[in-house]
Amino acid sequence: MASPNRIPEIRKDTVNNRWVIFSPARSRRPSDFKSKSNPINPTSQPECPFCIGHEHECAPEIFRVPATGSDWRIRVIQNLYPALSRDLESSGELAGRPGGGSVSLSGFGFHDVVIESPVHAVHLPDLDPVEIGDVFMAYKKRIEQLQCHDSIQYVQIFKNHGASAGASMSHSHSQMIALPVVPPTVSTRLDSMKEYFGQTGKCSLCEIRFDALLIDESIHFISISPFAATFPFEIWIIPRYHSSHFHELDGVKAIDLGRLLKLTLRKMNVQLNSPPFNFMIQSPPLQVSPTQLPYTHWFLQIVPQLSVVGGFEMGTGCYINPVFPEDAAKLLREVSISS
Amino acid sequence: MASPNRIPEIRKDTVNNRWVIFSPARSRRPSDFKSKSNPINPTSQPECPFCIGHEHECAPEIFRVPATGSDWRIRVIQNLYPALSRDLESSGELAGRPGGGSVSLSGFGFHDVVIESPVHAVHLPDLDPVEIGDVFMAYKKRIEQLQCHDSIQYVQIFKNHGASAGASMSHSHSQMIALPVVPPTVSTRLDSMKEYFGQTGKCSLCEIRFDALLIDESIHFISISPFAATFPFEIWIIPRYHSSHFHELDGVKAIDLGRLLKLTLRKMNVQLNSPPFNFMIQSPPLQVSPTQLPYTHWFLQIVPQLSVVGGFEMGTGCYINPVFPEDAAKLLREVSISS
Repeated sequence: MASPNRIPEIRKDTVNNRWVIFSPARSRRPSDFKSKSNPINPTSQPECPFCIGHEHECAPEIFRVPATGSDWRIRVIQNLYPALSRDLESSGELAGRPGGGSVSLSGFGFHDVVIESPVHAVHLPDLDPVEIGDVFMAYKKRIEQLQCHDSIQYVQIFKNHGASAGASMSHSHSQMIALPVVPPTVSTRLDSMKEYFGQTGKCSLCEIRFDALLIDESIHFISISPFAATFPFEIWIIPRYHSSHFHELDGVKAIDLGRLLKLTLRKMNVQLNSPPFNFMIQSPPLQVSPTQLPYTHWFLQIVPQLSVVGGFEMGTGCYINPVFPEDAAKLLREVSISS
Repeated sequence: MASPNRIPEIRKDTVNNRWVIFSPARSRRPSDFKSKSNPINPTSQPECPFCIGHEHECAPEIFRVPATGSDWRIRVIQNLYPALSRDLESSGELAGRPGGGSVSLSGFGFHDVVIESPVHAVHLPDLDPVEIGDVFMAYKKRIEQLQCHDSIQYVQIFKNHGASAGASMSHSHSQMIALPVVPPTVSTRLDSMKEYFGQTGKCSLCEIRFDALLIDESIHFISISPFAATFPFEIWIIPRYHSSHFHELDGVKAIDLGRLLKLTLRKMNVQLNSPPFNFMIQSPPLQVSPTQLPYTHWFLQIVPQLSVVGGFEMGTGCYINPVFPEDAAKLLREVSISS
């Protein structure tokens, strides 16, 4: 299965334009990777403001699913400690800043929380595919609201699960931050996918599928270990159809994605001992030109927290991954999940 | 001191070309930032292969300081678990790889360890400035050896201190990884500094000094909180003189840098409760053209580990920093250190 005598290899992630070092010498066997983090306490927590009945302890609600009634399944609310302020009118450049090329904008933006279940002990893979699909449709609805603000250029949807993955609340939730700038990772990815399209006339994510990297597939999606995965056991769920923006998702595809995400998270929990993890929906800026549409293609990136980032990674932006993606894919492909 | 009513602000790091969100609402007061990590056990550890007398337990030595004799002060050795292999002849592109734009090189490179002291309980700020200067001169000597390999394009010098900063050994050491590619952070910085030079005719790091961001200064260096610091209490030590590459350092300046680094680490330990930290020497690729020399300028970046990176940062490459750099600089400037 794993090849302990493999030599190190440097692979280029041509989607994100970065180099990754695959270094099996630094690793125990891929099958021995297990999270050592304490799992989140699954019992109810009477003080949790995200639990049903505690709505008054939260920052204002934006909407709920279903839209009315106290028996909600999903709530989209403001973050009580927002990174950006929705009350700042503009995001113009601040005056009176020191020179030397420094640029500063007022911190206008939105920082929302999506509570994925009314029940404290229920985590995302405990929901059924239709319910997970509803979470995706809530993201979509909120993006459509946010894109009415002219100065919002990008919305990052992400989930932090577990304290070491950045979660401050154990109740299952995800977050959405709407920014007045295009972040560097996003513009680099756009440039990189444009370059591939210029060379081949094709979308690099439509072309990405390789058998040895495949984990699972559904009607509309595939889950893979990317060829140059930045992190051990990183997983991408990619639409099989060409789709530039996440919020093009419809209700049928959302349920199909819910089914594949549920399977993927359950497999990750079995293989890696319920690790803390992050997922990010990687979609292009809200406003892209029609010429950009043929090479922008959204995907969902899942990163279990199994390693520590050190000075090399901070200094270079290159990561050292001890697990070859084809080994990770094989292990995850073969995990047996009773449905 | 800190301004709890400050509004969030988005600043551009024009050296690294990235946006940073300053979000005081998410923070306790800057003066309350303290590391909660367990400090490294300072007592001797009989099983440590980096201790004097245990040289035979290590991977081969490259050189020691002084050059001969058993009474060494610094040893530069191979890493026992190298990320890259020095035994692979070339770093040519691997054949037989799947298509779709994937690129793969054999993992040729060097991964060395610099043991900074023969004594287990002695950490870098315990050394005197001359001894720290010797560590810098050992880095320089090793870079000069590595640049004889034509295919080595970049050397990252870094230090991980504390387990949560990525250190697997508690004995004081730093690491050097020599790569056959230019990493993304480095090429982005080079492009960004080139753009500033094109606009102004000046080096952006020669221009960077602002009084409110200054922490300390020595004859040849300044320590500052950068205007768009990615991390809380991040510190840059920058040569006051224009110098493109770290390995231009001479013995006199190395001691001066040793004095300022010692002061900076001691202040950080007092103010932040001896946090785990990383430092990185940020220098351009080994081979730069003469036209690039006027705008490349090395610096030493110090990052205390006080926060967790989550899905937002992974997804966007934007970081949320709860501490304004001018507040961090003021606190660090005012820490009293008895010499």
